[in-house]
Amino acid sequence: MDDPFLFAGQEFSSRLIMGTGGVANLAILECALVASGAEITTVALRRTDTSGGPGLLDLLKRLDIAPLPNTSGCRTAADAVLTAQLAREALGTDWVKLEVVYDDRMLLPDPVELLDAAERLVDDGFQVLPFSNDDPVLARRLEDVGCAAVMPLGSPIGTGLGIRNPHNLELIVAGANVPVVLDAGIGTASDAALAMELGCAAVMLATPVTRANDPERMAAAMRFAVDAGRLARLAGRIPQRHWAAQASSPQLP
Amino acid sequence: MDDPFLFAGQEFSSRLIMGTGGVANLAILECALVASGAEITTVALRRTDTSGGPGLLDLLKRLDIAPLPNTSGCRTAADAVLTAQLAREALGTDWVKLEVVYDDRMLLPDPVELLDAAERLVDDGFQVLPFSNDDPVLARRLEDVGCAAVMPLGSPIGTGLGIRNPHNLELIVAGANVPVVLDAGIGTASDAALAMELGCAAVMLATPVTRANDPERMAAAMRFAVDAGRLARLAGRIPQRHWAAQASSPQLP
Amino acid sequence: MDDPFLFAGQEFSSRLIMGTGGVANLAILECALVASGAEITTVALRRTDTSGGPGLLDLLKRLDIAPLPNTSGCRTAADAVLTAQLAREALGTDWVKLEVVYDDRMLLPDPVELLDAAERLVDDGFQVLPFSNDDPVLARRLEDVGCAAVMPLGSPIGTGLGIRNPHNLELIVAGANVPVVLDAGIGTASDAALAMELGCAAVMLATPVTRANDPERMAAAMRFAVDAGRLARLAGRIPQRHWAAQASSPQLP
Amino acid sequence: MDDPFLFAGQEFSSRLIMGTGGVANLAILECALVASGAEITTVALRRTDTSGGPGLLDLLKRLDIAPLPNTSGCRTAADAVLTAQLAREALGTDWVKLEVVYDDRMLLPDPVELLDAAERLVDDGFQVLPFSNDDPVLARRLEDVGCAAVMPLGSPIGTGLGIRNPHNLELIVAGANVPVVLDAGIGTASDAALAMELGCAAVMLATPVTRANDPERMAAAMRFAVDAGRLARLAGRIPQRHWAAQASSPQLP
Repeated sequence: MDDPFLFAGQEFSSRLIMGTGGVANLAILECALVASGAEITTVALRRTDTSGGPGLLDLLKRLDIAPLPNTSGCRTAADAVLTAQLAREALGTDWVKLEVVYDDRMLLPDPVELLDAAERLVDDGFQVLPFSNDDPVLARRLEDVGCAAVMPLGSPIGTGLGIRNPHNLELIVAGANVPVVLDAGIGTASDAALAMELGCAAVMLATPVTRANDPERMAAAMRFAVDAGRLARLAGRIPQRHWAAQASSPQLP
Repeated sequence: MDDPFLFAGQEFSSRLIMGTGGVANLAILECALVASGAEITTVALRRTDTSGGPGLLDLLKRLDIAPLPNTSGCRTAADAVLTAQLAREALGTDWVKLEVVYDDRMLLPDPVELLDAAERLVDDGFQVLPFSNDDPVLARRLEDVGCAAVMPLGSPIGTGLGIRNPHNLELIVAGANVPVVLDAGIGTASDAALAMELGCAAVMLATPVTRANDPERMAAAMRFAVDAGRLARLAGRIPQRHWAAQASSPQLP
Repeated sequence: MDDPFLFAGQEFSSRLIMGTGGVANLAILECALVASGAEITTVALRRTDTSGGPGLLDLLKRLDIAPLPNTSGCRTAADAVLTAQLAREALGTDWVKLEVVYDDRMLLPDPVELLDAAERLVDDGFQVLPFSNDDPVLARRLEDVGCAAVMPLGSPIGTGLGIRNPHNLELIVAGANVPVVLDAGIGTASDAALAMELGCAAVMLATPVTRANDPERMAAAMRFAVDAGRLARLAGRIPQRHWAAQASSPQLP
Repeated sequence: MDDPFLFAGQEFSSRLIMGTGGVANLAILECALVASGAEITTVALRRTDTSGGPGLLDLLKRLDIAPLPNTSGCRTAADAVLTAQLAREALGTDWVKLEVVYDDRMLLPDPVELLDAAERLVDDGFQVLPFSNDDPVLARRLEDVGCAAVMPLGSPIGTGLGIRNPHNLELIVAGANVPVVLDAGIGTASDAALAMELGCAAVMLATPVTRANDPERMAAAMRFAVDAGRLARLAGRIPQRHWAAQASSPQLP
């Protein structure tokens, strides 16, 4: 369909952004990436895992997938700014998926450090794409300092708990003038569809694909789910009703 | 993918069964049916609406879609049995989607009349496909009397409330040796994906497509959603975890 | 408060009905019953467990708690009718909590056998109090044959899953002219409060108290929760709103 | 029961903190406060409403309820600090319920301004009780700077949406060494019970009581609900199980 996704100054047809965390090896990653139809994939500069290294960048180049460097592993604004600058030099892109998490147990963003880092990186000319919690106020403030998108979580990274608070996501979407990308928490296909139905412009995920029993098949599932949710949003769903019969039925609740 | 849907003695590739209730006219219906990829569509013999009449059967023939007569509008077993028999003569099929609802306000199946009618129609040689509530016991009893599938609801017809009780659906799927087809209650694409993820073999719906602002686009959304949910089920999703960090994290609840 | 509970021809002030399943011994049961404030407790005639036998009846007499015989363990209408008749002779009451479950794994009511037994017992002069699933149609049919109350489940016995389908419970309450007593599925206090808020006249439970770490304290919790939910229902809660600000805020959803 | 609530250096027996927003007049407020059993009530210094003014403070004094000044209406850290200092002079208390919200439409806390104000007020000798969103990281940081409690929301002020994200609340409770008080979003009694079951030390609310059809009765409902939830938490609830039958039943999910 003719429904381009404008993200950080470029136009894409896929609305599924892939991560590589948790993947067993590059061969499996390649299958999954192809099945996902993704045109953007995050690259962690500070982590050394089986999916990283020069092999990953070569793979993305071969598949014509844009690398999106992230600041995974950073705990402070200063740390994240430095990592972003190194990534810009190494990869020649001014994009940065900004991650500043508080600790290793929850892997949740630190709102204060995140906003500080975002402001500094915007001033330094980056296209800043911040991974944040689902706080509608933080989303506005990130947009206010010039972020190119906001990337709220559905639930903590890797939990597969889906979208714990759809109401917050609706508030974020209602208030945003930049794309809202659901990032983290997706467990299965219906979660991804729901994110799009709530008005997200795209979905970012890694472990639900890389850790699935069959990553390639789950990647295809996510591709279809994102398209399904996007189409349903555009199509305009029926309202929810308390009673089946239409005659005298009030709208829910 | 190579994953045929065996239903009432035949093999299909689509797992989305369409109804026609609520459609504005045959032209819109045609667009929606094509976009849905459906290979089976229900036909109401007792209702006269804009979508019915000979025009509907001609359309289904042209699109190579199998008509599935239903007993919509019946309130008793006797009524439903008679309607099914008339449908068999008229359409030359021994399939019947068996509907026996209690009243017009809730449009919920009457479990006693339904089971009675199912037993009689099985004895009369029909392939009986009963629209039932989401009671795991009734599902077993319908299978016990020889139904070719069970078709539990997610929520009442036309409410768009989605799957109100996923736990019941899981119990039904776990106990069934015939296909479980989620029938009624779907509101949007993620509902359909969830039904498939819970183990349903197919999804049946009408109003979420016919009453959407853009029926054709919503039909496409549902097609993708059913495929997404099926693939996700087959792919094996990640478990849900309470804490993000893997090291010491116990599994949820 | 002056809000009597009319149940099976008598008037009670407590709206918490206790069962005894799963209790470790009579001493613990006594503490829990006293803490619960219950005025009615079910008695299983066919089960022999630590809580049963003549000791249980003596205890109830001493605490001035009305025994409500149930047909726990019955699988068919005939079985349940016979058990009810034996209970009437043994206990000198025409009350019967009618249980006819399909199997031991799900412990879910069999709707067809249940309705059959209910009809026969009403004809035989019993005050029939049927444990049913949460199907609004079955609830109506049980009332239609003369049951003195309907006792739908929140979720299967002993699962502690709470009220899986509040929508069904609302439909049951909206259609009932007899008391609706939530029976089975309660896990914790907020579940009991919710049942009352949805319009139930009372709550029946056993394992969430008898199997709690501290049965006496949980019994007190349930007593407060039932009162809280009843008061909240009567007080008329605020509507749910999508936006905080009142000025231009539409009602939810 | 012997279960004192330690809050900001004092000991209370009630775990229900009342606000006065939305109340029609002081007579109704008095009835509601008495019925609630509250020992602490917030006082807004910057708002002039029917419940405020000297009449309110006299009423609280007469009822022996501790006034808790809040900074309602403040938008910046500087504003909140000044308001807190004025309140300290006026009321002779070093307690402050710290509110710094982003806008009037969502009434959601601004995490950055809130943390800044909290730090300054702690340095100035206040017992700081911050109204925050439900972000587990922000809760830790508020505790790290010396707040005497954390007061996360269940959903935005006045919406009555209950606890939208119980998972976040569980994470906050698991990580906190100060009392966690659920503040904002409560709609009805079961919401308050759930907050306590999730491990909150107390619940703070206003509109669900003041805007109920019958504020006095709803205040009593909330009192019972908080006690019910507290007792249930202490009693240790049964686990949730997928299947009813105990024999071979795995724990959920």
